[in-house]
Amino acid sequence: MPDPAQEPIPLPQILEDREAREKCGVYGAWGVEDAGTHAYLALFSLQHRGQESAGIAATDGKTILRHADMGLVARVFDNDSLDRLNAHAAARPRVAGGAIGHNRYSTTGASKLENAQPMVATFGAGDVAVAHNGNIVNAAPLRARLEGAGHLFRTSSDTEVVLHLLSAASAAGDDDPLASALAELRGAFNLIFLFRDRVEAARDPWGWRPLVLGVMPDGRHAVASETVALDVLGAEFVREVEPGEIITLNDDGLSSRRFADAERPLAHCIFEHVYLASPASKIFGPRTVQNIRELMGERLWRESPAQADIIVPMPDSGRSAALGYARASGLPYREGIIPNRYVGRTFIKPTGKERAAAVRLKLNIVSDIVRGKRVVIIDDSIVRGTTTRAKMDQLRKAGAQEIHLRIASPPIRNACFFGIDFPSTKELVAANHTVDEIARLLGVDSLAYLTIDGLKDVVGQQGAPAGDYCTACFSGVYPIDVNGATARDALTKNC
Amino acid sequence: MPDPAQEPIPLPQILEDREAREKCGVYGAWGVEDAGTHAYLALFSLQHRGQESAGIAATDGKTILRHADMGLVARVFDNDSLDRLNAHAAARPRVAGGAIGHNRYSTTGASKLENAQPMVATFGAGDVAVAHNGNIVNAAPLRARLEGAGHLFRTSSDTEVVLHLLSAASAAGDDDPLASALAELRGAFNLIFLFRDRVEAARDPWGWRPLVLGVMPDGRHAVASETVALDVLGAEFVREVEPGEIITLNDDGLSSRRFADAERPLAHCIFEHVYLASPASKIFGPRTVQNIRELMGERLWRESPAQADIIVPMPDSGRSAALGYARASGLPYREGIIPNRYVGRTFIKPTGKERAAAVRLKLNIVSDIVRGKRVVIIDDSIVRGTTTRAKMDQLRKAGAQEIHLRIASPPIRNACFFGIDFPSTKELVAANHTVDEIARLLGVDSLAYLTIDGLKDVVGQQGAPAGDYCTACFSGVYPIDVNGATARDALTKNC
Amino acid sequence: MPDPAQEPIPLPQILEDREAREKCGVYGAWGVEDAGTHAYLALFSLQHRGQESAGIAATDGKTILRHADMGLVARVFDNDSLDRLNAHAAARPRVAGGAIGHNRYSTTGASKLENAQPMVATFGAGDVAVAHNGNIVNAAPLRARLEGAGHLFRTSSDTEVVLHLLSAASAAGDDDPLASALAELRGAFNLIFLFRDRVEAARDPWGWRPLVLGVMPDGRHAVASETVALDVLGAEFVREVEPGEIITLNDDGLSSRRFADAERPLAHCIFEHVYLASPASKIFGPRTVQNIRELMGERLWRESPAQADIIVPMPDSGRSAALGYARASGLPYREGIIPNRYVGRTFIKPTGKERAAAVRLKLNIVSDIVRGKRVVIIDDSIVRGTTTRAKMDQLRKAGAQEIHLRIASPPIRNACFFGIDFPSTKELVAANHTVDEIARLLGVDSLAYLTIDGLKDVVGQQGAPAGDYCTACFSGVYPIDVNGATARDALTKNC
Amino acid sequence: MPDPAQEPIPLPQILEDREAREKCGVYGAWGVEDAGTHAYLALFSLQHRGQESAGIAATDGKTILRHADMGLVARVFDNDSLDRLNAHAAARPRVAGGAIGHNRYSTTGASKLENAQPMVATFGAGDVAVAHNGNIVNAAPLRARLEGAGHLFRTSSDTEVVLHLLSAASAAGDDDPLASALAELRGAFNLIFLFRDRVEAARDPWGWRPLVLGVMPDGRHAVASETVALDVLGAEFVREVEPGEIITLNDDGLSSRRFADAERPLAHCIFEHVYLASPASKIFGPRTVQNIRELMGERLWRESPAQADIIVPMPDSGRSAALGYARASGLPYREGIIPNRYVGRTFIKPTGKERAAAVRLKLNIVSDIVRGKRVVIIDDSIVRGTTTRAKMDQLRKAGAQEIHLRIASPPIRNACFFGIDFPSTKELVAANHTVDEIARLLGVDSLAYLTIDGLKDVVGQQGAPAGDYCTACFSGVYPIDVNGATARDALTKNC
Repeated sequence: MPDPAQEPIPLPQILEDREAREKCGVYGAWGVEDAGTHAYLALFSLQHRGQESAGIAATDGKTILRHADMGLVARVFDNDSLDRLNAHAAARPRVAGGAIGHNRYSTTGASKLENAQPMVATFGAGDVAVAHNGNIVNAAPLRARLEGAGHLFRTSSDTEVVLHLLSAASAAGDDDPLASALAELRGAFNLIFLFRDRVEAARDPWGWRPLVLGVMPDGRHAVASETVALDVLGAEFVREVEPGEIITLNDDGLSSRRFADAERPLAHCIFEHVYLASPASKIFGPRTVQNIRELMGERLWRESPAQADIIVPMPDSGRSAALGYARASGLPYREGIIPNRYVGRTFIKPTGKERAAAVRLKLNIVSDIVRGKRVVIIDDSIVRGTTTRAKMDQLRKAGAQEIHLRIASPPIRNACFFGIDFPSTKELVAANHTVDEIARLLGVDSLAYLTIDGLKDVVGQQGAPAGDYCTACFSGVYPIDVNGATARDALTKNC
Repeated sequence: MPDPAQEPIPLPQILEDREAREKCGVYGAWGVEDAGTHAYLALFSLQHRGQESAGIAATDGKTILRHADMGLVARVFDNDSLDRLNAHAAARPRVAGGAIGHNRYSTTGASKLENAQPMVATFGAGDVAVAHNGNIVNAAPLRARLEGAGHLFRTSSDTEVVLHLLSAASAAGDDDPLASALAELRGAFNLIFLFRDRVEAARDPWGWRPLVLGVMPDGRHAVASETVALDVLGAEFVREVEPGEIITLNDDGLSSRRFADAERPLAHCIFEHVYLASPASKIFGPRTVQNIRELMGERLWRESPAQADIIVPMPDSGRSAALGYARASGLPYREGIIPNRYVGRTFIKPTGKERAAAVRLKLNIVSDIVRGKRVVIIDDSIVRGTTTRAKMDQLRKAGAQEIHLRIASPPIRNACFFGIDFPSTKELVAANHTVDEIARLLGVDSLAYLTIDGLKDVVGQQGAPAGDYCTACFSGVYPIDVNGATARDALTKNC
Repeated sequence: MPDPAQEPIPLPQILEDREAREKCGVYGAWGVEDAGTHAYLALFSLQHRGQESAGIAATDGKTILRHADMGLVARVFDNDSLDRLNAHAAARPRVAGGAIGHNRYSTTGASKLENAQPMVATFGAGDVAVAHNGNIVNAAPLRARLEGAGHLFRTSSDTEVVLHLLSAASAAGDDDPLASALAELRGAFNLIFLFRDRVEAARDPWGWRPLVLGVMPDGRHAVASETVALDVLGAEFVREVEPGEIITLNDDGLSSRRFADAERPLAHCIFEHVYLASPASKIFGPRTVQNIRELMGERLWRESPAQADIIVPMPDSGRSAALGYARASGLPYREGIIPNRYVGRTFIKPTGKERAAAVRLKLNIVSDIVRGKRVVIIDDSIVRGTTTRAKMDQLRKAGAQEIHLRIASPPIRNACFFGIDFPSTKELVAANHTVDEIARLLGVDSLAYLTIDGLKDVVGQQGAPAGDYCTACFSGVYPIDVNGATARDALTKNC
Repeated sequence: MPDPAQEPIPLPQILEDREAREKCGVYGAWGVEDAGTHAYLALFSLQHRGQESAGIAATDGKTILRHADMGLVARVFDNDSLDRLNAHAAARPRVAGGAIGHNRYSTTGASKLENAQPMVATFGAGDVAVAHNGNIVNAAPLRARLEGAGHLFRTSSDTEVVLHLLSAASAAGDDDPLASALAELRGAFNLIFLFRDRVEAARDPWGWRPLVLGVMPDGRHAVASETVALDVLGAEFVREVEPGEIITLNDDGLSSRRFADAERPLAHCIFEHVYLASPASKIFGPRTVQNIRELMGERLWRESPAQADIIVPMPDSGRSAALGYARASGLPYREGIIPNRYVGRTFIKPTGKERAAAVRLKLNIVSDIVRGKRVVIIDDSIVRGTTTRAKMDQLRKAGAQEIHLRIASPPIRNACFFGIDFPSTKELVAANHTVDEIARLLGVDSLAYLTIDGLKDVVGQQGAPAGDYCTACFSGVYPIDVNGATARDALTKNC
């Protein structure tokens, strides 16, 4: 039991439990039958990267047809819209089937249809559509320069800046306008372009976000944010798109060129391993995310063991690490918390006395598993901490004798300028409190995080070299200058 | 009865009865309380000018909030959206209440949300929204020039070309970028701009479409397509916006400047008098449209009297002229045709034997009025002729002994490049048949149209000088060179 | 100008302008191809009788398929639902195509999907669907008796009482359970039943509402509320269904029996002539409603002439009578008021200063027609008077010098228990004020109503014998005892 | 590897993967503040028991207000509907807050709004609403008897039969009409009634489905299908409602009476332990479902061990048993299959070559966990087997060396007449094939099911006595005569 002298510090209120940490998903392919349906399946498999909006664009060689709307892939597309996309792509005479797709993650302010991607535009060289995952750090000065030259913007999105750069380079007679445009960008970006005669896929020189290349059974290629999309499409994983590379898919097959040298060191987002990517994907190396997360759990036990009876994961995000922690510790792994799979965004939050009930609704405690036990709870990370505290209360009321919370990543203390929608640092509990304070805030008997070194050791052995990761959200060390931008500014206009 | 030797020439099929002839409606005001609600009421009063989409934009002095969607004003806005617009406009510190609005007319191909207006954009000088009624004849070369200079377009709309011109002129350091941009445009346009600190309303130098200025009881000004909007808002009519004039409404009140001399002769659209404008509006002069249409009916009797028992209007469009025709002739005016007010766009057209019933559904004949009678039917115009023929059949079956069809405007034989969405000339019955042939096609005993001279006489006495009208759809005389564009091309991208 | 000493008595507020006076529409046919589509067209033609909900039921000889929903016919049905109904009716082996349909009028309280008709049920003799137009005055005691016998009710509707009576009579082994059930009903009712093997159409012994029989070109029969439905279907009018008659349509064609003698005198609803029925329908006799309304206008002139310059109808309901009034008076008939066709139920009523504008929106005054004139305004009736007053204000502000209001029916002073949804007598302006008071309330220079004798003279000469009408809403003389029920009670559960 | 001589027997096709096995959820309470919101939270917690429709009824002491619609709880209710229900319940003068709720499970044929519950009706004793979970075996003869007595039915639902019995008993002057009506029913039923002055909750004499009683912090009682609903509401579990008992909640608190003796032996549905109930609920005894399922897994190991490298659960339904199996075996528990949480009912099933991709979409295999391994897959049950086979194929393609499938319940070989929506026995794979055949059909190296004795041992020790369970779906031994009804017949009209 917590020392009565160490009363939990009151949190302002238990408000909002969705701590959005998602990222966009992108896809592109050329020469694929039923191009719309393939894109639809790929987007479905990447739905965990973005739930705000979804869209697909396809070309018949003359024009680009786009279908996009707010909401989940399942809501955005129906038989009619897929049929239209399939037919449009199939109308191209020689090699048909060019399409790209995009899932957008959820933000609050800029959540509107105008921002749904792919974004479509026309310029001197014809029509183009683009799907973008990332965040351009120098978008503001680029945009100012373009506005100074008379360019007219229709949205506040980074993505539109990229298209304007392309249009300007093209009008200026540049030999490779796309490469020239991309070379101006700083930040995290995967960009999939659809032109009338090709798909072009580019990855930033730092390799921030994952982007993989696969080959379909019929020899056609596809690019996607994660390997799970390749698995679903029946495609073999070929390799990652390299940092600074442009891959072109067209009637002649695949070709590659560079728009920039890869930066050294690279800046893979370590939070992809921690939370963002699907457990079944292989990113930044040959091992699955599930596997690496289990190893994080093992390392967490070695760094911060606990005297306890059982190990219980916070479902679903803590399950992989909890298995590793239990394995290393030899303590029993028990599923003592059952999530309610039906509580989503449309849940009406009661305002009266039922608020506590609403919080309880999200998780059901299996009482005869936790009652009277010393319980280790494993979760992947803590953002604001408000919902974690509510969950700890619920465990305590269900009879847990001791609660030892172990987090399989370091404290999140810094803004991300490269595409993760953390709340402002004011709201990040670890940016404002010590670990001891957080333990008291959450009302747990002990709290420990995985160390940055521990995390880097694990990913360094199983993923990319440890030095090739961006750990800014944990360490505050930003791989590139962020120009004094605030995270909020950055994020109001990103992917 | 028609001569058996003159069998009706079979029409290919009774295809589409909506012969869209609508035009957009625009509105703007500055400093008006509940700015969104006022715009909403104005758009409701101008709904007859466009039913495809509706939108309102308002500014708080810093940003522009837009709400627009497909469908009728009644569908697009609800309490929430109006409250948001009102609150946004009310947030401006000194003089609040800047808003503009737009009703878009219905076309088939380009009917989509992306084209709903007002259109919003950002450029070097800040945000701007624009509502556009008209058609820019030289949009294509202007766009080509802009694309050549690296401009990126997001839609195929003329309206976006205008904004790019403004942005380019602004970036080039022009003293009056708006005036410079407008001076480049040829064609029909009323453009209402909303900036953060003002509304600017411009009318093309030919004065193609009506645009009026009114003053509210509290001294604030408003501009709108027709005087009925002023009536609804309780505003006094001040004057027309002059051809070639820009009117600015801002915190200091009203000011005016010219971006071009008025063209001589002017080119008021004579079809506004015939069909487009509300009967209760005063356009191109001090008389109401209702009044002028009655006079067209009187003139039509003098030009083409008929030996008949009764005068029956085709409701609702032929009623005004029928009253004039009856008055001049001394023959009884009878309401022998009752329209079904519920048959709109969502009506499911049966494909089997019920097609004939579906045609009958639109009008009910009052049989004891027409049976055994020699009937003069008055309508305002004929476009394709297909639905007119079905109506004539129905009258005949209801027992009309003779049918004399009189049309209160000349035959429509030519495309409009200035904003009216006539079908292609292939489908215009009068472009392909003589009046005698049309009479046979329609199965009527006699047919006569008002002459162009007759029409010009009437409007010349009651509206603007006869020479100040564009009569191209009737006469084929286009006031300006139309650059070889086809009507279809023009219309796919206009207002 | 009104005498300053006679200031308008302030009305509490301008509340609700829709003064619902609609009635249900019913239809039934047997052996008709595309049975669903035919019912759909019939309901469309009867839409003026009810806009709250619509429904069609069809049988395949084994089961009954119903599609019904809230809203206009155009909204309730789409291609899918019509296809399903057509296919279901077509599946009957020998003679296919049995279907009935129903439009429900709008009330406020009981406006819900459960009450949408046709109502479907199952009892000992199989499935049945019923469409009902009317109001059963003795529904409450019948229901009490049935509940006492253990019957369970699922709605508060009169219509369900009818089905329970049928079920009880059937279980009791009655020879003609339908006739026995109908014989128990007192009040106004047209009931169209769909059984697996037939349609049966019954009309109350008083003949309150119109119900007509027609024959299709292929010899099949149809019944419908008004002849306009027959016109649309291409059916010939045969005769009215007689008061107290049941008409059966089945595989053998048409047969008829009586469930009751016709009451003498009959009780045709005179308000059908005044307002409810379509101008193009013939009801209660061989003349169209349009024709009779014109004669009411002529009679109104003879009873209450006015010294005036022009006659202006209140569109659309006053147009027929205004033509008659103008014809009799020799004064010019002018269309000085233009209705806004887009202001319907979804209009958002402003709450602030814009309320006045919202009232103005419904009608536009053609100023150069009314300005400086002595105007006679003709309307069909006045219910609450609130909207009429707003319209008179608007005319005055548009410059009418004198306003003489003439109403082509007597003052409505009494509740209707037979199916018209008048507001409570507290809200009926003529139930609480003298004609002089009403004139002052409305702010008109003179006001006159058609007399009851005048109205009866006109319908007596052109429709049914004058004594065969129910005039209760005007005269307070109820043809049958209404059991102390209040109009509100009655109406919460009717058609 | 399967013996080449034992080629998988081709299954007709991989059609439909949702093998609906859900059951309804019910709730009732009296005297609870914000009665609608409490019901909403309870329904949310019981959502796993039914996803087709949801509804809540509340009373103000005079009338019953119901809100129900198709779809998930999250879709059916919004702030407006909950506010209305809360306000209606709060309007009762003395003790306010009576409400009941219902989730309906999904079937295909009878899936329509008319069947959404609670069902509301009126009879001699006033209004009543009822929420029903179960299936009445003798509904058909009861209904025939009632129809013979003149009762009129509005739906094909069992639930309406119950209300008719209540109405008939009430009209017959029975002392306790509810008890008399319930005494006539045979089968599985939990019935929650809402009257104007009380809630009454009844459970069938066999105790088929779980129904629990809890007490809120303020002393008020609530009944619900499972204890998870009590947990969410913050209520303490008191006891199960007893088989044959009626519990009344009214202004005086709680009272109880019996309408029948409990049947001996009882007939608790053993499939609730296997699949239906929430892992966090305690049903038929003091242990959680999660706990018992783990023990089933342990028993399964002892009955059917496998020579293997890892134990992998089929998520989410096989997870509990897999943990028990792994624990007993000492083999590593690995999460090698990741479900896609976004593939729900609205997923568009591709018809072409993408069908295989669509199957893969539901699960992602963590390849470096299963590759080259001898894998034991644990699932809770097999119904049709078609989707299981697709999943085994996917595992094999991901590199699993051997697949040993273990099912934590016996083969399902018989129809359920008591409320579980199994497909027809023709489609139940175990009703038509031996275990060896099924292994070949599924393409697995070995297959074993838990024995009936093993299952009964586990539940007998941890739940109710082993003899008090209905095991008909496994054993074919039906606790009561099912009157020759087929499962399909039964299910078209149940809960």
